[in-house]
Amino acid sequence: MGIETLKQRIAREIGTPALVVDLDVVERNIAKTQGLCDAAGVANRPHIKTHKSNRLMQMQLEAGAKGITCQKLGEAEVMAEGGATDIFISYNLLGDEKMARLARLMQDAEMTVAADNPLVVTELAKAAAMAGRELRVRIECDTGRKRAGVETTAEAIALGRMIAATPGLKLAGLMVYPPENAADVTNAFVAEVKAVLAGDGITFDELSSGGTPNLLNLGSLKGQTEHRAGTSIFNDRMMMAAGFASQEDCALTVYTTVVSRGGPERGILDAGSKTLTTETGWDLKGHGFILEHPEAMIARFAEEHGMLDLSRCNDRPVVGEVVRVIPNHICPVVNVVGELVYVRGDEIISTEDVAARGKLR
Amino acid sequence: MGIETLKQRIAREIGTPALVVDLDVVERNIAKTQGLCDAAGVANRPHIKTHKSNRLMQMQLEAGAKGITCQKLGEAEVMAEGGATDIFISYNLLGDEKMARLARLMQDAEMTVAADNPLVVTELAKAAAMAGRELRVRIECDTGRKRAGVETTAEAIALGRMIAATPGLKLAGLMVYPPENAADVTNAFVAEVKAVLAGDGITFDELSSGGTPNLLNLGSLKGQTEHRAGTSIFNDRMMMAAGFASQEDCALTVYTTVVSRGGPERGILDAGSKTLTTETGWDLKGHGFILEHPEAMIARFAEEHGMLDLSRCNDRPVVGEVVRVIPNHICPVVNVVGELVYVRGDEIISTEDVAARGKLR
Repeated sequence: MGIETLKQRIAREIGTPALVVDLDVVERNIAKTQGLCDAAGVANRPHIKTHKSNRLMQMQLEAGAKGITCQKLGEAEVMAEGGATDIFISYNLLGDEKMARLARLMQDAEMTVAADNPLVVTELAKAAAMAGRELRVRIECDTGRKRAGVETTAEAIALGRMIAATPGLKLAGLMVYPPENAADVTNAFVAEVKAVLAGDGITFDELSSGGTPNLLNLGSLKGQTEHRAGTSIFNDRMMMAAGFASQEDCALTVYTTVVSRGGPERGILDAGSKTLTTETGWDLKGHGFILEHPEAMIARFAEEHGMLDLSRCNDRPVVGEVVRVIPNHICPVVNVVGELVYVRGDEIISTEDVAARGKLR
Repeated sequence: MGIETLKQRIAREIGTPALVVDLDVVERNIAKTQGLCDAAGVANRPHIKTHKSNRLMQMQLEAGAKGITCQKLGEAEVMAEGGATDIFISYNLLGDEKMARLARLMQDAEMTVAADNPLVVTELAKAAAMAGRELRVRIECDTGRKRAGVETTAEAIALGRMIAATPGLKLAGLMVYPPENAADVTNAFVAEVKAVLAGDGITFDELSSGGTPNLLNLGSLKGQTEHRAGTSIFNDRMMMAAGFASQEDCALTVYTTVVSRGGPERGILDAGSKTLTTETGWDLKGHGFILEHPEAMIARFAEEHGMLDLSRCNDRPVVGEVVRVIPNHICPVVNVVGELVYVRGDEIISTEDVAARGKLR
């Protein structure tokens, strides 16, 4: 009865679609991430890009997180306002507008910033000069994911020398985001960079790794000092596919109403690509998992229509039925919707407009 | 020099990524849509789901639009605050929370709402009773797109009888959204529904069709009285693929900076899936078109990384370069970012936080 009662309350008091966050599950997820980091002896620096919420950040800090990770300056600004004092921006920042903002932020929080090329390092020195404080700069290294990051140890070593020689900057170790189960490449990369720079008298201790699935691989990177996980606070269908989470670990579900049934095999949810977002990964079929109708597939989207293929369902939803969807990828969903409805059991506790929603700069 | 100067201004005063709207092109696009409707003798009822902006809605109304179309109640509420007095919500609305809001909205604007099933009609009657005003209800008919809408003339006829017999509701004709170049099916469907209902003494004149590409097919639907086009105010890569727009007709480009170059064939934009959104359609390759580097492909995304495949580029962008991207589908981009930077030539005119951003209910 709990879920049915909650559905009625959500439909009546909030309306659908709604992003409903079970705080009991959130607390369990935060404790699990913190526990995995503690057991491995690495600092927990959760990535707030997943939730963008000051409230949830504060819960992470209270549970033992050392600091936070942001991907954009705008996120960091919002989190500093919410009380964060130790922020890592794991992203290349460039341009006068961003350097001025970074310098302002350095007054309120200890900032660490990533860099993977000389232009970024040159720019960051300007921010440090403006702030009149030392800026911690971490070399982003690509050890297989083909995203940002230097691809070669030679580039990492050159950047390390440059950072060490630049007034106002302090080399804050290395940042990696290795593919799952590929620690060997990263270990070799890090060892070489460390050894060569040590030969120049440039030493560092910090090694930051990331990713929710990699929480299961803690201990495999030699000398790892901190971990950045984002999705583990909510989990999603991709984290289920990755083997990190079960259905019960998914703290955020999208409550959505069946608003149309076009023939026996089709239905329409009032959540489309503007709510559930068009992301797939890990060979997922369809655009989300419907808890009440596991055989239904969210086959395609219009912006406000989730088009259901019900051909494999025995129990087919009727018009007016409220169902819960676990999104494929939770991070863009929170970013676009911005409003979280917090619940415990069948009680609605509160809502929050997450302050860093849609912060693209 | 105009674009280079503008890029410098955007980078310095706004920062990247930024959604930059050329008002000269917007005005041209609005005039084109209005002109096509005028020439065909159908009312122009632009769909504001594309821009979500009160300012741009007002420009559309000033250019001759009869009213507006919204997909969500939340959009309609925002547009009514911005001065809209004639609003069509082309979507099934359900539930007490939505009926209460609809009833309130009926005090400020003449409302028309779509319905494709009996439950929705029953609900809408409650809103009309609450408002103490007649509510215009339009039957949504699916003539091939397989989205919402009744699939059979029998269902449309039954709904027409139900609406006509329900106190407080007025049958406001039919709504279709036919696939491009498939007017015959729609014409036959509409003619049959009209004839059968006329035999019962139930008559109506209104036929509302939609879609930007269908602006090129105006005249092919017999008795069409209004058209709903959304994307034509901005256009995008999909509208280019559909043959409706050229590059010069795309009013909104995303200014984004190359923040990393991983080896000779890779690069990273500071706009990822949280800015450009992961939508493809019309067999488009890649996630947007880069004006300065047409051979570069935005091959994949992380949330804040646009991963460039530069293997086919002779002229490859360097770190720090600002480029302009025409998104695949503009509507979800505006919805998630919410901030538009208006320019004319190389001048920044103003910015607007679009009020209906992310309105999912």
